[in-house]
Amino acid sequence: MGEKVISVFIFFTLLALCSSGSEKRNHTACKQMVLFFHDIIYDGTNGGNATSAIVAAPEGGNLTKLGGQFHFGNIVVFDDPITLDNNLRSKPVGRAQGFYIYDTYNTYTSWLGFTFVLNSTHHKGTITFAGADPILQNTRDISVIGGTGDFFMHRGIATIMTDAFEGQIYFRLRLEINFYECW
Amino acid sequence: MGEKVISVFIFFTLLALCSSGSEKRNHTACKQMVLFFHDIIYDGTNGGNATSAIVAAPEGGNLTKLGGQFHFGNIVVFDDPITLDNNLRSKPVGRAQGFYIYDTYNTYTSWLGFTFVLNSTHHKGTITFAGADPILQNTRDISVIGGTGDFFMHRGIATIMTDAFEGQIYFRLRLEINFYECW
Amino acid sequence: MGEKVISVFIFFTLLALCSSGSEKRNHTACKQMVLFFHDIIYDGTNGGNATSAIVAAPEGGNLTKLGGQFHFGNIVVFDDPITLDNNLRSKPVGRAQGFYIYDTYNTYTSWLGFTFVLNSTHHKGTITFAGADPILQNTRDISVIGGTGDFFMHRGIATIMTDAFEGQIYFRLRLEINFYECW
Repeated sequence: MGEKVISVFIFFTLLALCSSGSEKRNHTACKQMVLFFHDIIYDGTNGGNATSAIVAAPEGGNLTKLGGQFHFGNIVVFDDPITLDNNLRSKPVGRAQGFYIYDTYNTYTSWLGFTFVLNSTHHKGTITFAGADPILQNTRDISVIGGTGDFFMHRGIATIMTDAFEGQIYFRLRLEINFYECW
Repeated sequence: MGEKVISVFIFFTLLALCSSGSEKRNHTACKQMVLFFHDIIYDGTNGGNATSAIVAAPEGGNLTKLGGQFHFGNIVVFDDPITLDNNLRSKPVGRAQGFYIYDTYNTYTSWLGFTFVLNSTHHKGTITFAGADPILQNTRDISVIGGTGDFFMHRGIATIMTDAFEGQIYFRLRLEINFYECW
Repeated sequence: MGEKVISVFIFFTLLALCSSGSEKRNHTACKQMVLFFHDIIYDGTNGGNATSAIVAAPEGGNLTKLGGQFHFGNIVVFDDPITLDNNLRSKPVGRAQGFYIYDTYNTYTSWLGFTFVLNSTHHKGTITFAGADPILQNTRDISVIGGTGDFFMHRGIATIMTDAFEGQIYFRLRLEINFYECW
């Protein structure tokens, strides 16, 4: 008799755990990585070093200098080296490729759509990100919306910190990537 | 004997429920929100009120007027107030930030990539959207591809309705957001 | 006694299977499709046939010819027919709509953000893609980040092959779409 009660209890406990609607998902990361990437924007003179370029601007803007009014409307395309530490000259483990848009009239924020293309002895595959980046905040979260290769079907959250910012030309971002779906 | 049969049955039932391949996912939303956002496009004269600007156009286009041929190729960057009702002057609960592209030659459709940045007493966090928006249809669905903060790892579908459309300058969208993954 | 041991074993086996963190996800596609799409870029003379247009370029670029230096920074908006086979003149089953960016300084790669809008007797709904496309590789994987309609909440991976490439004007891509979350 007692065994039957236990069986029934076990059944419903597992049923609750298994049914997708009430599934208790794990908020502990199943994989974590910290990576840096480096952006040197083209200003009309630094063609040899630049890793990104302004390609669109609103009326009256130009393509070698980020616009006034918080750069609103500037679209920048980038092909930035990814490193394991914060040194621009460290051996790259991949490229961060995509675009960012300055998209606020009264402060500095951007919208990011980009992919980490990793090709090192440790990691082969891609991680794709999208989301709003309120640049002036110390840390901000964007979404990891997909992955391929070693990151097959992964999802997660990336926490961004501005690790360096030098004039209008160079910035370096630190990304702590936490995957919560690892497959 | 009968108990063993039942145990085996329970085992396989739960196994089927639990295995990801045959998982029965819940098509009932685990969270729902209705929000409005308001877009006032810059036309060269309304700098004080505008919340968006044309930043790219195909050959022959200009940046203060959406192009002919269904605006094909225009990219608009926006920073639009989000409200709980359809009144432009209601207190905003956040900003809709990102871009849309007019991307059909023979009708009005757009492609959206944007984020709701919510910062009210009720909701703190971001929701990121992407997808095609066939503007002339009464309702159309786009994908919720990620979330942060209160919307950590969320996914879902947003149903868009054009709630108002005034000339080439102002439109208001109603979004019913249904989350099916809530974490 | 033996039965209790078995019960406990079953309980923990199922618990392990059911808990999201250690969930064994299915790497076999739950749905597969092969589709082609065709891109004819506007060059200033082919207005009647073109399905895409350059809408942004870095300093010094123009909008009727992809730029030098591996087209870095060009943004192209497209509205391309989707077909079931590799014939441009086959009856389209939908439109591929969105944009691509050439985003590498020293080789040909692009970044894609687009949606398949399908509207045939077989499929009604949208599939949204994002990711890096290293064009010169034989096959490359991008992420399926969301879906609506028949593809409600789907996720997966699309493997791209360049099926044809004619001058600077026409290319055709073959997409093998593998969904791993089907709902």
